[in-house]
Amino acid sequence: MRVALGVSYRGQGYTGWQSQPHGRTVQDRLEAALSQFADTPIRTLCAGRTDTGVHGLNQVIHFDTEVQRELFSWVRGTNRYLPADIAIQWCVFPEDEQFHARNSAQGRRYAYLLLESAVRPAIESGSAGWVFRPLDGEAMRRAAALLIGEHDFSSFRSAECQAASPVKTVRTVEIHRRGAYWRFEFDASAFLHHMVRNIMGCLLAVGTGAKPPEWITEVIAARDRDAAAPTFAPDGLYFVGPYYDPRHGIPPRVPSMDWLP
Amino acid sequence: MRVALGVSYRGQGYTGWQSQPHGRTVQDRLEAALSQFADTPIRTLCAGRTDTGVHGLNQVIHFDTEVQRELFSWVRGTNRYLPADIAIQWCVFPEDEQFHARNSAQGRRYAYLLLESAVRPAIESGSAGWVFRPLDGEAMRRAAALLIGEHDFSSFRSAECQAASPVKTVRTVEIHRRGAYWRFEFDASAFLHHMVRNIMGCLLAVGTGAKPPEWITEVIAARDRDAAAPTFAPDGLYFVGPYYDPRHGIPPRVPSMDWLP
Repeated sequence: MRVALGVSYRGQGYTGWQSQPHGRTVQDRLEAALSQFADTPIRTLCAGRTDTGVHGLNQVIHFDTEVQRELFSWVRGTNRYLPADIAIQWCVFPEDEQFHARNSAQGRRYAYLLLESAVRPAIESGSAGWVFRPLDGEAMRRAAALLIGEHDFSSFRSAECQAASPVKTVRTVEIHRRGAYWRFEFDASAFLHHMVRNIMGCLLAVGTGAKPPEWITEVIAARDRDAAAPTFAPDGLYFVGPYYDPRHGIPPRVPSMDWLP
Repeated sequence: MRVALGVSYRGQGYTGWQSQPHGRTVQDRLEAALSQFADTPIRTLCAGRTDTGVHGLNQVIHFDTEVQRELFSWVRGTNRYLPADIAIQWCVFPEDEQFHARNSAQGRRYAYLLLESAVRPAIESGSAGWVFRPLDGEAMRRAAALLIGEHDFSSFRSAECQAASPVKTVRTVEIHRRGAYWRFEFDASAFLHHMVRNIMGCLLAVGTGAKPPEWITEVIAARDRDAAAPTFAPDGLYFVGPYYDPRHGIPPRVPSMDWLP
């Protein structure tokens, strides 16, 4: 049977999602815990691989198994074998056996959390990016609007990106402020490797006045990584999660989504 | 001359504030950094010592030195020698040379952040407490109102408490909810050792229905630690900071105060 799970994790202590020989990745820790709980090797497939230091709020994974357990047992039983900064949040047995964590996703959401302060953060160390210059929210919103739609995002793609095509559809970019914090929310069909961090670098170049908002159009048109700003820090990046056709019954949110300021 | 500093820190990696021979405390790291920056030994005095795992938003310290540095140099220069989870946020040279981080404080504020969720947290690991049972906010607010005023808080005091008197004045207790998070805010003349965590244990006994709100009055009257609930986890406890007569010019808040949900 096919099992789907929602996973939350703090990325700070891990070399990203994807399994590596050294074993210090979220996938390695998760598969070790699942295999221990199920008493048989389990390999998983996720909705979106995250980089070193990037956090996951509602990462979705699936796997097939002959092991029979109650829904809540998969959650609570596996969590006993996971470190404090990784936890399964929910379990679903999809009715449609074709459900696929990555291929069934209609889109994905990322959030970037940023502290604007003259002095570097301590409390939010590893949990938020930091800029010491004041940001112009209106300029960033005008720049962000130019990203909406289907574009070739090659300028925002890292050299290691394995995506088949650089053409993606950005559906929304929202920029909210609360006190000293800025929250950027991105919704797209899919994201290229480093795409959000590269977009953040460009939006901050606009926000600090180094570039005008219209510059974003030039960057997109160039289809050249060198045309964009440097990749911004991973610290404040959260994979909010994928979303699916409601018929799959996959929970679209977890309690921790109220965590971000 | 006297120097006052505001310090933010994540408590997770430290054995509390107060200096210890093993050196793994916030005070040890801070004094090492100050001494390195000033090129002379510096010993500090703080507004409120925090326990292992407890975070500081606007901890205030003072010390006397003959070293002459610009205000912002004390901040930025010292931060270069501090780990990512400790940072000085501001510096003031108090006009009144009698200013004293602890003795001049008119009161102190603490906050407790709590996740209410059927499943344990991961993202907020070390940053929030956790209850899996639903909480009754109205019952907790009625219980909290009974703490207001001058009382002998011996029932909420740990055996190791060094305070001269168990009599303290609780000025306000506010309980807010945002999504899955509860935020408890405490304002008092001063706090005994473990006082907030012991109060939290009692408020949660009321919130989960194990005890009625009026039970708090019995607990206070008993003046006996055994009358209260067990000490709750340190993970969600934040020392928001002390406050002073405005004539001292001590900043009452730092940008990170917008961090808590």
